[in-house]
Amino acid sequence: MNRLQGIHIPNLDEKMGMNAEKYVNSLTKPPGSLGRLEEVVIELAKMTGEAFPEISPPGVIVFAADHGITSEGVSAFPQEVTCQMVRNFLNGGAAINVFSRSINARLSIVDIGVSSDIEDENLVKKKVRYGTANFLNEDAMSPDEAVKAIEIGFELGQKMINDGAKCLILGEMGIGNTTTSSAVAAAISGKNIDSLVGIGTGIEKNKIPYKQQVIMNALKRRKPAADDPIDVLSKVGGLEIAGMAGAMLAAASNRTPILIDGFICATAALVAKLISNQVTDYMILGHRSVEPGHTHVMELLGKKPLLDLEMRLGEGTGAAVAFPILQSAVLMLKEMATFETAQISNKE
Amino acid sequence: MNRLQGIHIPNLDEKMGMNAEKYVNSLTKPPGSLGRLEEVVIELAKMTGEAFPEISPPGVIVFAADHGITSEGVSAFPQEVTCQMVRNFLNGGAAINVFSRSINARLSIVDIGVSSDIEDENLVKKKVRYGTANFLNEDAMSPDEAVKAIEIGFELGQKMINDGAKCLILGEMGIGNTTTSSAVAAAISGKNIDSLVGIGTGIEKNKIPYKQQVIMNALKRRKPAADDPIDVLSKVGGLEIAGMAGAMLAAASNRTPILIDGFICATAALVAKLISNQVTDYMILGHRSVEPGHTHVMELLGKKPLLDLEMRLGEGTGAAVAFPILQSAVLMLKEMATFETAQISNKE
Repeated sequence: MNRLQGIHIPNLDEKMGMNAEKYVNSLTKPPGSLGRLEEVVIELAKMTGEAFPEISPPGVIVFAADHGITSEGVSAFPQEVTCQMVRNFLNGGAAINVFSRSINARLSIVDIGVSSDIEDENLVKKKVRYGTANFLNEDAMSPDEAVKAIEIGFELGQKMINDGAKCLILGEMGIGNTTTSSAVAAAISGKNIDSLVGIGTGIEKNKIPYKQQVIMNALKRRKPAADDPIDVLSKVGGLEIAGMAGAMLAAASNRTPILIDGFICATAALVAKLISNQVTDYMILGHRSVEPGHTHVMELLGKKPLLDLEMRLGEGTGAAVAFPILQSAVLMLKEMATFETAQISNKE
Repeated sequence: MNRLQGIHIPNLDEKMGMNAEKYVNSLTKPPGSLGRLEEVVIELAKMTGEAFPEISPPGVIVFAADHGITSEGVSAFPQEVTCQMVRNFLNGGAAINVFSRSINARLSIVDIGVSSDIEDENLVKKKVRYGTANFLNEDAMSPDEAVKAIEIGFELGQKMINDGAKCLILGEMGIGNTTTSSAVAAAISGKNIDSLVGIGTGIEKNKIPYKQQVIMNALKRRKPAADDPIDVLSKVGGLEIAGMAGAMLAAASNRTPILIDGFICATAALVAKLISNQVTDYMILGHRSVEPGHTHVMELLGKKPLLDLEMRLGEGTGAAVAFPILQSAVLMLKEMATFETAQISNKE
């Protein structure tokens, strides 16, 4: 991990946070009455170091990869859907396309490990391998491949920021990746697998115990080291999870806020945190997913989500739907009058 | 209530709702995976009777009025702030101005009962009286005035819709109006006043028992009839609450969705429901306010909110901040590809 060892994540700008808090309290509203909008804009000021943080345009990077564990029948959809959905992204017809357009985001679709080849000039081709191996029987990937996937994510995150993105949203597509994420989250957190496994894209509820058993058996056989992100990723991880973690590290090293999506994205955030603990300083959680594991992972990240709309699609959609909340917070700071300028009497 | 007795609220278009549900399930995502966005767009299809509901542009009407009960020292801000904030609205510097601009809403500011005169060509002047009377000592207004305020709200709601608004947001400004709303909500619901009173714009927590006592004494003296909206409004109501209720009735009679704001707005919705029970069919709750009474009132409306961002500003801000969620839901329906058009394999 040569390149990753040199990552420098700056400290939050606490002074700018205090300035922002003071300014928020001078705006024409009872102090605290805009609740989490006030909290969020103070966080954004600390992250960006700007008195009036800019978050537009946001950049959305969707990493797509396949998962060998699908051979065990853990998903409601066949593996070929990963590739089909990538084509849907490239044609602009998926949910993340719709929501990215509505927030004027730049959108980049990355093949970091789909199991077949896709020819399209708009696809970012960064395939590390043709899907992971079935981690019930062998390691998902080599340590070198895990590092490579993180580095690709870092590079693409950096590129998105260089191209002008002021806030990063990471999305994913990978049939089977709630299974992978549950394995990764369990490996890192030591939490009971029962609390980390849900229906994913929609398996029957009575198939959940089977999905749990597959993950437990895999963890018993692979024995990933809880504090070693490369060991966890190579043994039970996914290429899109590694890519997202890398992109998050790039954002944090640039003081660029990261708006986290659901369970898979938050699991990637846990991996990024193992690589560099300060990365979470630059994260805001977009929404609470229906996936039960998400709640536990959010606790480990020490943050609470903005939205709770019972979503569980992935692709970055929960974060994209939450983005207008950040916009409202930023506009509040930028455009509201103060008690003084509006000549309004303050509290008695 | 001559004009109001003739209000006809159409039934929801259940068939269009079923069509929308079927179409939502054909879109390229696991069924149900967009959670409340799916629920909301089906509701919007039932309300509007449209296969692809239009909600833009939204219209925001802010009703401002004063409350005689402020003489009892129940608010953290002096009464003059109502008038000062109306000027702030007219100058574009308040939170509702900022959020209305960000959702491209038409915004109308109405003086329905401010205690002083305000000269401004952009103000809609519909003053029914110079603030309500102190309802601890006398009725807040006459029954005729209550009816008139509802009728004004109806007329202005109708005008906003005639001018092109596809979704109505009602906001308010009135120092003292959480006290009034708590009284109205208690009168209608019979709930214990302890559960309906909060800090409002920010009184000290140790002043809450006093605020509760004022309301309890007023209710004991005024004895509003729980099932009579005009009796409740005239005895312990507010002019902006009456206006908002009227505008809601106009929206429902036009099949126009209503996005409800916080405690005061939801209390106005309760009043509207007493006038015509079906009006709630056309309501979506934007957010959960910090005010404790809001949760009880939402239960009485039989709905759950979209956002929970610990806001308590009023003005319609919670609804305006929630509006992009509706937009996301509508765009999902309009722009996403179906499994068939995108040639994607369905569940196994």
